Amino acid sequence: MINLQPSSLAMVPFVSVQDMMRIVHSIGMSQMITEICNYIEADFRRWPSFDKTPRVAAHSTEGVIELMPTSDGEYYGFKYVNGHPANMARGFQTVTAFGVLAKVVNGYPVLVSEMTILTALRTAATSALAAKYLAPEGARTMGMIGNGAQCEFQAIAFQEIVGITTVRLYDIDPQATIKAAKNLENSGLKVVICDSAEAAVTGVDIITTCTADKQNATVLTDNMVGSGIHINAIGGDCPGKTELHHDILLRAGIFVEYPPQTRVEGEIQTLDEDHPITELWQVITGKSQGRSSESQITVFDSVGFATEDFSALRYVHDQLEKTGHYLDLDLVADPNDPRDLFGMVERAKGLI
Amino acid sequence: MINLQPSSLAMVPFVSVQDMMRIVHSIGMSQMITEICNYIEADFRRWPSFDKTPRVAAHSTEGVIELMPTSDGEYYGFKYVNGHPANMARGFQTVTAFGVLAKVVNGYPVLVSEMTILTALRTAATSALAAKYLAPEGARTMGMIGNGAQCEFQAIAFQEIVGITTVRLYDIDPQATIKAAKNLENSGLKVVICDSAEAAVTGVDIITTCTADKQNATVLTDNMVGSGIHINAIGGDCPGKTELHHDILLRAGIFVEYPPQTRVEGEIQTLDEDHPITELWQVITGKSQGRSSESQITVFDSVGFATEDFSALRYVHDQLEKTGHYLDLDLVADPNDPRDLFGMVERAKGLI
Repeated sequence: MINLQPSSLAMVPFVSVQDMMRIVHSIGMSQMITEICNYIEADFRRWPSFDKTPRVAAHSTEGVIELMPTSDGEYYGFKYVNGHPANMARGFQTVTAFGVLAKVVNGYPVLVSEMTILTALRTAATSALAAKYLAPEGARTMGMIGNGAQCEFQAIAFQEIVGITTVRLYDIDPQATIKAAKNLENSGLKVVICDSAEAAVTGVDIITTCTADKQNATVLTDNMVGSGIHINAIGGDCPGKTELHHDILLRAGIFVEYPPQTRVEGEIQTLDEDHPITELWQVITGKSQGRSSESQITVFDSVGFATEDFSALRYVHDQLEKTGHYLDLDLVADPNDPRDLFGMVERAKGLI
Repeated sequence: MINLQPSSLAMVPFVSVQDMMRIVHSIGMSQMITEICNYIEADFRRWPSFDKTPRVAAHSTEGVIELMPTSDGEYYGFKYVNGHPANMARGFQTVTAFGVLAKVVNGYPVLVSEMTILTALRTAATSALAAKYLAPEGARTMGMIGNGAQCEFQAIAFQEIVGITTVRLYDIDPQATIKAAKNLENSGLKVVICDSAEAAVTGVDIITTCTADKQNATVLTDNMVGSGIHINAIGGDCPGKTELHHDILLRAGIFVEYPPQTRVEGEIQTLDEDHPITELWQVITGKSQGRSSESQITVFDSVGFATEDFSALRYVHDQLEKTGHYLDLDLVADPNDPRDLFGMVERAKGLI
């Protein structure tokens, strides 16, 4: 008798949105962000061992679809991610994503995962990691401009990893701020609702800008930024989409993930091509100085890089056995004789 | 009460290996290859409307993992594919693949599909499409060097689309030839088992080379190729991996899919960068001449291009409703309020 059940080689673990939520709650969100942050930091420490390339972007008038591949020689990972600012008004997510981890030695996928939630977690973890190295010592308050889907994840990450105790929230849409404040009411953070961007950044140690408009916006003007502040600039992440006034950049220390990508997509797209920047991995490994003085303004010009998704996928892959929250997908054709793909298909006739 | 079932927006149809086999048998393999060929031809006819880029390859000593994206402005598609020549001996497929189709307007995936089987079908369909335009008139016999996983699909495609009635098979491993001959015994093709590459190409109208070794091999030498022959060169598809002797190329008309990719990956990687080649889409649309005379040797230097996968994914997407052979995957996070991703995750606590 012919066995037509897919073999174990054919099966790839799939983490759905529901399974990702199960994983989050079985570990705890704060704990999971911290653990992902540790994976990201570990991978930044071995930065030269990664095969790096700017993401491959397909731009349209409505938004962008990107593929973000990388490899450490043992595993290969990539993320599919879209960014469509008009989606929200139509009832869709601005950013959705999924990703895959595969073994380099044979090219077989070992994980397919939703990454909409996972991207939110890894983006927050990366921001907090950068702030751990760059923010002024003893930073306790953070102003957040843009209170959309990423806002609360950032707040939790900065609470856990940086020690933030107060967040000051502002969004051009007050409903977004009310949503974020409500979601954070049991977090242990003190939440202050503000009616202007100026009010949100008054007296803070860290400013997080996280808006979605695809334009060269100025959500932060020069006069709003006092000395010693750390700016966590999340929203400026594709050509023509920035958040900070040019003059802020000119007087700040600028830290980036992967220069070839950030020069095109980040806040620094408006600066000269040779404007000095520092790579985050060099700060983490001690090869470059981070904050140079108490009064320096530091900017983490974050656009999101493939290694961060790789770290997050690697983390989720390591949780599969522990949590059991996944489904096996019959994704890889696996004939008994690997050359007999045709025969496998033919023999299935009438039997499946 | 909170509804925690994923909404329809969250769901993406997934075609597993088993479902792909069900689709093949509900349509019929010959019929399906012909229909995919029609989709590929239709997309070659509107070639300028595609956003094209060479595939993004991650090479390792063991093989290659590639992402192949393209878009026609309405849909975006990509394929993940590996090529690992040593896999077969280890019980794995040399080539496995899966792919995704998404809407450009909002970036949401509309199909995730296995593509190991589908790639075999589309590669055969593309080869037969090229031969329809390039092979000598009245071609009835084909020699096939390399009788691995792609062989029988090619035979069926050339039978259906080109009118081939006889195939002559040779492989360095006789077991591969026996496997292919057995799989084709009820196809209606006359199958001749040959004990050398020379014997396989004796008196044929078309030669298909389809070997997997990652090296500059010479499976076809100059003296084996008589005038008027069409060569369907499938196996040479990455840097350092070719099949044809240099001298064959120098006296042949060479036809390619996408020059920037083929110059790096195809047989022509051994030629000067400005060696004349013709793009297949221009032959199909009548902008360029195909075969110039009865005696011309024509070479389709096929490496596989992203638009062919796009066409195949588009075809499978169009079969979903008709066949019903798919599963809904909970792949996209879809909170009621698109900004409230955090709240969606938090509210699921203890309920999933």
